[in-house]
Amino acid sequence: MAVAPRTIRVDVGHARYPIDVGPGLLGDAQRLAERIPGKDLLILSNTTVAPLYLARLGAALPGRRIAECVLPDGERHKTLATAAIVFDALVENRMNRDATLIALGGGVIGDLGGFAAACYQRGIACVQVPTTLLAQVDSSVGGKTGVNHPGGKNLIGAFHQPAAVIADTDTLASLPDRELRAGIAEIIKYGCIADAALFDWLERQMPRLLGRDPEALVHAITRSCEIKAGVVGRDERESGLRAILNFGHTFGHAIEAATAYERYLHGEAVAIGMRLAAELSARIGLLAAGVPARITALLAAAGLPVEAPRVGAGRAMSLMRMDKKVLAGAVRVVLLRSLGAAEVTADYPGKDLEELLAEHFG
Amino acid sequence: MAVAPRTIRVDVGHARYPIDVGPGLLGDAQRLAERIPGKDLLILSNTTVAPLYLARLGAALPGRRIAECVLPDGERHKTLATAAIVFDALVENRMNRDATLIALGGGVIGDLGGFAAACYQRGIACVQVPTTLLAQVDSSVGGKTGVNHPGGKNLIGAFHQPAAVIADTDTLASLPDRELRAGIAEIIKYGCIADAALFDWLERQMPRLLGRDPEALVHAITRSCEIKAGVVGRDERESGLRAILNFGHTFGHAIEAATAYERYLHGEAVAIGMRLAAELSARIGLLAAGVPARITALLAAAGLPVEAPRVGAGRAMSLMRMDKKVLAGAVRVVLLRSLGAAEVTADYPGKDLEELLAEHFG
Repeated sequence: MAVAPRTIRVDVGHARYPIDVGPGLLGDAQRLAERIPGKDLLILSNTTVAPLYLARLGAALPGRRIAECVLPDGERHKTLATAAIVFDALVENRMNRDATLIALGGGVIGDLGGFAAACYQRGIACVQVPTTLLAQVDSSVGGKTGVNHPGGKNLIGAFHQPAAVIADTDTLASLPDRELRAGIAEIIKYGCIADAALFDWLERQMPRLLGRDPEALVHAITRSCEIKAGVVGRDERESGLRAILNFGHTFGHAIEAATAYERYLHGEAVAIGMRLAAELSARIGLLAAGVPARITALLAAAGLPVEAPRVGAGRAMSLMRMDKKVLAGAVRVVLLRSLGAAEVTADYPGKDLEELLAEHFG
Repeated sequence: MAVAPRTIRVDVGHARYPIDVGPGLLGDAQRLAERIPGKDLLILSNTTVAPLYLARLGAALPGRRIAECVLPDGERHKTLATAAIVFDALVENRMNRDATLIALGGGVIGDLGGFAAACYQRGIACVQVPTTLLAQVDSSVGGKTGVNHPGGKNLIGAFHQPAAVIADTDTLASLPDRELRAGIAEIIKYGCIADAALFDWLERQMPRLLGRDPEALVHAITRSCEIKAGVVGRDERESGLRAILNFGHTFGHAIEAATAYERYLHGEAVAIGMRLAAELSARIGLLAAGVPARITALLAAAGLPVEAPRVGAGRAMSLMRMDKKVLAGAVRVVLLRSLGAAEVTADYPGKDLEELLAEHFG
């Protein structure tokens, strides 16, 4: 039985857009005609994704003038210099204010393409076509765009909501297992912070998700996007609530930085970070004692790492402070009150964090 | 008698900010304390303006951590590569999300600094401290920021409203006469499109304005900012009304491009453009026959050029089409119905434009 696509509507006040999730969307000319505005299109992709999906997408966009810009693959290309290449492509292909940039790829293409669209002629439409699980459940939704600077990730960017997000689950067939699991880490995150039912479902259905069962993928991605859209709709610019989406990320960023961004994928570092954040939540008495073990077990069942690298507690602490730009006092972290309920706080005993770091980072 | 500063309040819905106009503002520590948020400040300026005013401004900001970034002077430095230098300065000086960028200079510094502030950490506060008449009456107000691309001016940018605009009229003392007159061109524009009383006042008071009389300057700048703020408040992103601010600019851009951006200052090209737009308005019967001569006389009284360069009517037409990205049909221009009332239209006989261009461009 064919799995039907599902559509989530995002509303951030000044912008509304649909997220389509399902198989076969890249070839669905009728849907693409509705979702993608503008006669002139620049499809931005990379050397890994373009050979697999660019022709399929282009063939389903009859009657448009289509230009292509294919970048080298990899996070190290998410720079202002690469954005300049995209601006050049937009100018050379005579794209004007009613043109649309289509970002076909993973998080790097989505963040970079969204940023280029935000700045070109002070803002043209951007349609996100994420082809990794991480991009489908996280970076393509919410309007955060940007590029890295040697001084930090995403230091240069813009808030620019997409005109539409089209998440074709068929594209996940080509995703390496390790990247699939890293995407699942973010889905587990949504369960932890906002939806105990999703967490329960993941405990039961993880084998189907790992087996890329289309129905399971559509369910998990749809629910994740609904949660993220709900949070972003209430707090687009992260004045408060949106910060709960960073559950596991303060620990995770420190782990990524301590290992020079080479040993772990982002989702893997966040997996370890979620375990630590859950343990801190229980240690200070906010979360029931049995919950961290459930979270750790679910992460392990997804094939994700749960043991922190032994980089030293002092190193971990200073990297957490740097990530949060906190020179003195407690680092703000996202903690759990229960499965499905999170809060952002710097109000916890510093000693508990120190002990936790000592146990896990050595 | 000392001239008192005046304050205009801008309201674009999602952002509100004050514009202060008057003498002595750069040394007014109390006002600066109210207007400039943040403990950490990066003052962006250029090699012409910094030696004159940076120390005065810094001395009036006690208790802040102040870093400086001084760029070479000139429009050719308004590029993405120069924006990258500003990002580097923000990172190197450890500026975080609640830091403020102060743009101390003319239009290039204001546009570039505004753009850098818009993108750094997805948006930090920017205070505009314009030191040229053109920047005080035009570019510092309204939130349009950006840099040039070889393919066109301001092709890369953002809408980013400033936290405050501080227009110290004392800084105009160091402005070359030619730049003063180029700024007056934009003030005449506001009279033409929105305020017959301002136009009348300019006809009477032009000698005082050219003599840099403080009271006259404060009046002309304040009224100009009020008009621009009123237009921008109703149409931030130029969906309609804001386009009337481009009176004279479609002709002016063609004149600048035809002379390789070397022969005329922007305001000078706009002066010629306003004369032509007024003559087209009268030629098609929209504007009373005597008005173009009044506008031409006022521009001449300000020492501005009013004769178009003889670059050829065909060249002028193709550059106007390119500026407006119109391949076929009529070019949209801003025309006058009367002094103080403008409209944007492509609904006029093409033959009238052709004849006008033939007369003036040869």
